[in-house]
Amino acid sequence: MSSSYSNYTNSPCAACKFLRRKCTSDCVFAPYFPPEEPTKFANVHRIFGASNVSKILQEVAPHQREDAVNSLAYEAEARLRDPVYGCVGAISVLQRQVLGLQRELEETNADIMRYASSLGGESTSVYRGRRG
Amino acid sequence: MSSSYSNYTNSPCAACKFLRRKCTSDCVFAPYFPPEEPTKFANVHRIFGASNVSKILQEVAPHQREDAVNSLAYEAEARLRDPVYGCVGAISVLQRQVLGLQRELEETNADIMRYASSLGGESTSVYRGRRG
Repeated sequence: MSSSYSNYTNSPCAACKFLRRKCTSDCVFAPYFPPEEPTKFANVHRIFGASNVSKILQEVAPHQREDAVNSLAYEAEARLRDPVYGCVGAISVLQRQVLGLQRELEETNADIMRYASSLGGESTSVYRGRRG
Repeated sequence: MSSSYSNYTNSPCAACKFLRRKCTSDCVFAPYFPPEEPTKFANVHRIFGASNVSKILQEVAPHQREDAVNSLAYEAEARLRDPVYGCVGAISVLQRQVLGLQRELEETNADIMRYASSLGGESTSVYRGRRG
């Protein structure tokens, strides 16, 4: 249960306020959508819909619900910022970055090997130490 | 317009078939949800809802709609596979991979520098060449 849940007793959660409904003590949204973060719910509602978010929360174990809500909020924000690619755009950028770094590392290691062999092989421990 | 759009004239698109409605010639889903890929629509419908997908498609320029649908389908599939983290899980894994590779590359470059300076600095061109 998030620390913001205690606030809920005083005012309806951001979801119930947005949906203009009574926020009851068993509200599935209240622990994860505190009233002081109205945009968080507005975003996930706009991209996934309240009913789908509720369904996903029911499917997930209680101790994982906060992570589920935060990942949904992250995805929703990314989709609102970039309606074409959403957070899949970030995945493409990161995949390219991984490939670039792997290539650079291979080239750097090849340089060490080349350099070491030109000096008679005495420095190969530099390369081997890194992989071990 | 995707190549599968030509198939649509013969049978309703996967979205209209799923929603049990008539598939008209101006159907917003038809070009991107061919009847032979029923799971693609079922997945995005389950996670985002048909109405939200339609809204996102309307917001996006026609030449970007295929990319938008494919990224929505990717996100929906990831969320069905992992209801807690969805494709945000892939982002975390890739971010950790990038940090690990950057660290490894820095260490390898530091090794080269250390090794070069122990030999009197003659090999620093190996390191500098990589960055240039």
